[in-house]
Amino acid sequence: MKLTTIRTRDGTRAARIEGDEAVLLNYADVGAVFASGQLAAVQTASGDEVGLASASIAPVVTRPEKIVCVGVNYADHIAEMGRTPPSAPTYFAKFVRALIGARDEITLPPAEVSTHIDWEAELAIVIGSEVRNADRSQAQAAIGGYTILNDVSVRDWQRRTSQFLAGKTFEGMTPLGPIVVTADELGDGSGLAISSSVDGVIKQQSNTSELLFDALSIVSDLSKVMTLVPGDVIATGTPGGVGAARTPPEWLSAGREVVCAIEGIGETRNLCQ
Amino acid sequence: MKLTTIRTRDGTRAARIEGDEAVLLNYADVGAVFASGQLAAVQTASGDEVGLASASIAPVVTRPEKIVCVGVNYADHIAEMGRTPPSAPTYFAKFVRALIGARDEITLPPAEVSTHIDWEAELAIVIGSEVRNADRSQAQAAIGGYTILNDVSVRDWQRRTSQFLAGKTFEGMTPLGPIVVTADELGDGSGLAISSSVDGVIKQQSNTSELLFDALSIVSDLSKVMTLVPGDVIATGTPGGVGAARTPPEWLSAGREVVCAIEGIGETRNLCQ
Repeated sequence: MKLTTIRTRDGTRAARIEGDEAVLLNYADVGAVFASGQLAAVQTASGDEVGLASASIAPVVTRPEKIVCVGVNYADHIAEMGRTPPSAPTYFAKFVRALIGARDEITLPPAEVSTHIDWEAELAIVIGSEVRNADRSQAQAAIGGYTILNDVSVRDWQRRTSQFLAGKTFEGMTPLGPIVVTADELGDGSGLAISSSVDGVIKQQSNTSELLFDALSIVSDLSKVMTLVPGDVIATGTPGGVGAARTPPEWLSAGREVVCAIEGIGETRNLCQ
Repeated sequence: MKLTTIRTRDGTRAARIEGDEAVLLNYADVGAVFASGQLAAVQTASGDEVGLASASIAPVVTRPEKIVCVGVNYADHIAEMGRTPPSAPTYFAKFVRALIGARDEITLPPAEVSTHIDWEAELAIVIGSEVRNADRSQAQAAIGGYTILNDVSVRDWQRRTSQFLAGKTFEGMTPLGPIVVTADELGDGSGLAISSSVDGVIKQQSNTSELLFDALSIVSDLSKVMTLVPGDVIATGTPGGVGAARTPPEWLSAGREVVCAIEGIGETRNLCQ
C-alpha cells in the first residue's frame, strides 16, 4: 500500500494512492494511520479522491515525535568525507521545523548565514508500531514503511563544531515524502536504487543494499535507547556524491532544483529559493 | 515569579509557587503559560493550592517542541574531557522521552546495555516567546526563564561514534525542573552558583558566569537556524567534575541519588533505579 499526506482547506489528511488519485482517509497524516493500527481497513476504505498531480503534498508525517538521522552509513560517502567507518550507527537529530513536503520550495538561509547548502538523498524508515529493545525480527515488524528524506545540509554549520545538529536542522530545508510504501511491499528496504540529481544532472547513484547498517540493525539498535513510536522517522544515511566532496565544492543556490529518487517509492523534487 | 508543573488526577497543571504552596493555574504546563503571553495575569491568578513538598512534579515543560543541549561550554569540563574550546556553541538534541521530573527516579538501562552512567548539572533556558534571527537584546526578551537540567549521559553510547545523541537521549533519564524562575528575576542567567552531588558528596561546583557561550549568545546563535518557540528548552552545558573524568571513573548505579543545584532556582534530586 502507498500512503501520503495532503494539505486540504481543513488541515492535512492522510490518503491512499490509487494510480493517479489520492483517496482521502480519516486520519491527519500517515503517522496517524500507523498509530491507529487499522491498516487492513485503510486498504479498502473509500473517501473523496484528489488528483495526485495537482495535490499539495505535506511532509508525509507532519509532526513526528522523533526524526533520527544516521550519518556515515555508505562506504563511498565515508571515503569522500574523509571519515572512518564507525563500529555502530552514528545518530543525530532533526527538529520538526526542518521538514517540508516533497514538492515544496527549500528556503535557503540568508547568504550571510551560509551559502554551503548540500544535498543528501536518503531512504527513511517510518515506524509503524511501538517498539523497545527489539531484535531484528521485532524491528522488521515495527517498521511501517519507507519514504525519501533529502537531508539537506548546511555544511559550514555542520562542521563548525564536532556535532552535526546545527547544520542539519535548519528550518524548512528537509523534504520528506512524497509517499510511504508499506513494509509488506518493501521488506527490509534493501535492494533499492537510490539517486539524486541537481538541475537534471545525476549527483548520487547507489543502492540501499550498500548501507553499512541496514534498516533492521538501526531500528533494533535505536530501540535500546528509547521507545520508537508510530510516525517516528529514521533516515538511514546518504551515498557518495554530495556537493561538499566535489572539486571544487558544489552548492545548492536559488533557482536550482534538487531531485532525490528511490526505486519503488518515487521522488522528492524541490526548488531552492 | 516561580512556576512549576504538577501532576494531578486530571493530567498536568502549571502552578505558581507561593512559599510552600503551588497555586494551580489553567494551563497544562509552564510552556503553555509562556505560550499564552498572559504572565501578568498569571502573577495574580488565584487557584487551588497544593503543598509543594508532597506534590508530584512533572518535567516543567512536559513536551517541549525542542530540547537543545550545548556541550563543551565550561573551560574546566573541556579540559577534563580532553577536548578543545570550540569557536561556536556545540549543539546536540534530546527527545521528549528522555525527560523526567525533578524528583522522579532515573531509570537505568539494563547492565548489558550500559553501566557508564554519568551526571551533568546544567542551567537550562526556557524560551518564553517566539524568536528568529535574534540579536542579544531580542534573545534576552525571548527568554521566559531558567530551570535545571541534569544531562545524565550514557558515556559509552555517547562515545561509540562521533555524535553524542545516542548517549544523551536514553528514555527516562533526564531530570528537568523543579521550577522555572522567570527572566525578570534572573536576567541573563549569569552569576549563579551551580553544583552537583552524588549521595551527598559534591562532584561539580562552579558558577554560570564561567560559561564560554552565555545564554544570550546561545539563543541568538540558535535562532539563526530555526524559530525558537515558547517552551523550548536549551541546556547550556556542564562544568568540570563529571564521573567519566575521574580516576578511576565513577558511575551512577541503582540506589545512588544525584542532586543538581543552582542558586535561586533550587535542586533536582533523583534516585537511580
